[in-house]
Amino acid sequence: MRTIDWVDGAVQIIDQTTLPAKLVTRRLATVDALVAAIQSLAVRGAPALGVAGALGVALAAREYADPAEREQAVRRLAAARPTAVNLAAGVRRAAHRLPEGPEAVLAEALRLRDEEIAASAEMARLGADLISSLCGASPRLLTHCNTGGLASVTGGTALAVVTELHRRGQLAGVIASETRPLLQGARLTAWELGQAGVAYRIAVDAAGPFLIARGEVDAVVVGADRICANGDVVNKIGTYAHALGAARAGIPFVVVAPESTLDHDTPTGADVPIEDRAAAEVTSLAGVPTAPPGAPAVNPAFDVTPHDLVTAVVTEKRVMRD
Amino acid sequence: MRTIDWVDGAVQIIDQTTLPAKLVTRRLATVDALVAAIQSLAVRGAPALGVAGALGVALAAREYADPAEREQAVRRLAAARPTAVNLAAGVRRAAHRLPEGPEAVLAEALRLRDEEIAASAEMARLGADLISSLCGASPRLLTHCNTGGLASVTGGTALAVVTELHRRGQLAGVIASETRPLLQGARLTAWELGQAGVAYRIAVDAAGPFLIARGEVDAVVVGADRICANGDVVNKIGTYAHALGAARAGIPFVVVAPESTLDHDTPTGADVPIEDRAAAEVTSLAGVPTAPPGAPAVNPAFDVTPHDLVTAVVTEKRVMRD
Repeated sequence: MRTIDWVDGAVQIIDQTTLPAKLVTRRLATVDALVAAIQSLAVRGAPALGVAGALGVALAAREYADPAEREQAVRRLAAARPTAVNLAAGVRRAAHRLPEGPEAVLAEALRLRDEEIAASAEMARLGADLISSLCGASPRLLTHCNTGGLASVTGGTALAVVTELHRRGQLAGVIASETRPLLQGARLTAWELGQAGVAYRIAVDAAGPFLIARGEVDAVVVGADRICANGDVVNKIGTYAHALGAARAGIPFVVVAPESTLDHDTPTGADVPIEDRAAAEVTSLAGVPTAPPGAPAVNPAFDVTPHDLVTAVVTEKRVMRD
Repeated sequence: MRTIDWVDGAVQIIDQTTLPAKLVTRRLATVDALVAAIQSLAVRGAPALGVAGALGVALAAREYADPAEREQAVRRLAAARPTAVNLAAGVRRAAHRLPEGPEAVLAEALRLRDEEIAASAEMARLGADLISSLCGASPRLLTHCNTGGLASVTGGTALAVVTELHRRGQLAGVIASETRPLLQGARLTAWELGQAGVAYRIAVDAAGPFLIARGEVDAVVVGADRICANGDVVNKIGTYAHALGAARAGIPFVVVAPESTLDHDTPTGADVPIEDRAAAEVTSLAGVPTAPPGAPAVNPAFDVTPHDLVTAVVTEKRVMRD
């Protein structure tokens, strides 16, 4: 099953806001419906956002005959979320083909989709090889947020490494940190791990560094929304704390992300716009208030892990060490 | 208003599981009712647990005429939660007076209560002086869990320092990390700060290290459940991650706790039993599932911050620097 695809002239997604309670697919036939789905995180994850951006341009090419309107729609898509480099890159790549007409745009978007599928398989292989070489047989891993098939088209990035190790019979288990505020770890990663039959435990995010210190984790494996020219890794809020914990304990901290996540044009993490999201995500959960009425909150969606805390970056082409 | 007190022959507490939605006081007339309240975290916080332990022995002295039954009740109290040193210490202190009869036990427990109230005021003064000297005028602080009046009898520890700085007009604001899984920060600290008129923002726990790195925090101020002989600090899960973030950014990490929290008999944090609580606390929130049905979880309630990450420990008597 694919998280995002082109089906009968529209974008089809697995809605990630209803999992694990319900597996719902949604058909998005307009650019604005897709932008809304991106902003509500119904579709999310760096590789999936890249494909969403490219397929969105294919929608725009069909929806808008007027070039100015089409260009505005393409801009709305690219700006739907600011932090992941893949979204804007996917939009740019497909938009290059706009002069050739809607079919050329769609063909380019589908090529990107197929490349992400192939990249997942390669990252899984290279990442599993690396983890085995760093940790030996049957490591216990910790991962954050969701980087599985649901964050990609199918397969995933960091979670594809976890499931590949499981497939090889070389995984002792994995801790999935819940990933507040939107619980992508508890909801989505746990669901995917359960489907795959992988032994896992959920932990609150704040427990990560302590579980590492207590000796329950042999390596941390995470994805990335953007990797800067100097190697700084921008990823879901909470990644940096796990990296600090891994560094203090002397265990590997491995980032798995496609080449499309590498942003050679952005020098360091300090240069990346970090999306600050609504306070309500922090002060309530599934409609239940978690704080006094009207309580203010600060809600950065991503953080920056400085490159010196990163043991290695695995892409579909290579393993880079700092 | 006191979080815990002796009223008309029974223990009276503010029930901390219903805040901020409802302010409920409960009357606990038996040892077993008090033990249940301690285990459900209706009463919590190291100083409050010390007073609860002592008052619980006063209950036992009245409830059980048979010495063997009384002794068993005292043991149940001391073992209700394993990590905070104050609970067992409060029990021990009051139990010493058992041979003198129920009134002597109660008098000892009330002395402990009054000492904790006085200690809060002194910690607030010493801690505020220290923060001002370390950070200059109007610092922005970050705190974790709840260390205010609700964790003590009145006043508190780390949060008493925050409110004292506010009272002096020397606080720019405070970030309260929500403290998953039971949200003591979002529920209790936010409520107390709102009542006190202090400018605050809630953040998910995992955002702490990044908000520090982004330059939004001048010092971290937390409480402690136990401070070991070597200075290792055992406190609510998530404290260690904030300490790692503070150390990396070079900002002060200050622990505020009464002398009763110092445990000279336990050499290091590795020697402290860490309470692992039920998975359901992690996989649901206020009855709402946050993970797939039956998902396993690991739920350590505390972590250990190594002493080298601690800038200073403030008690009611002194400021200790590593």
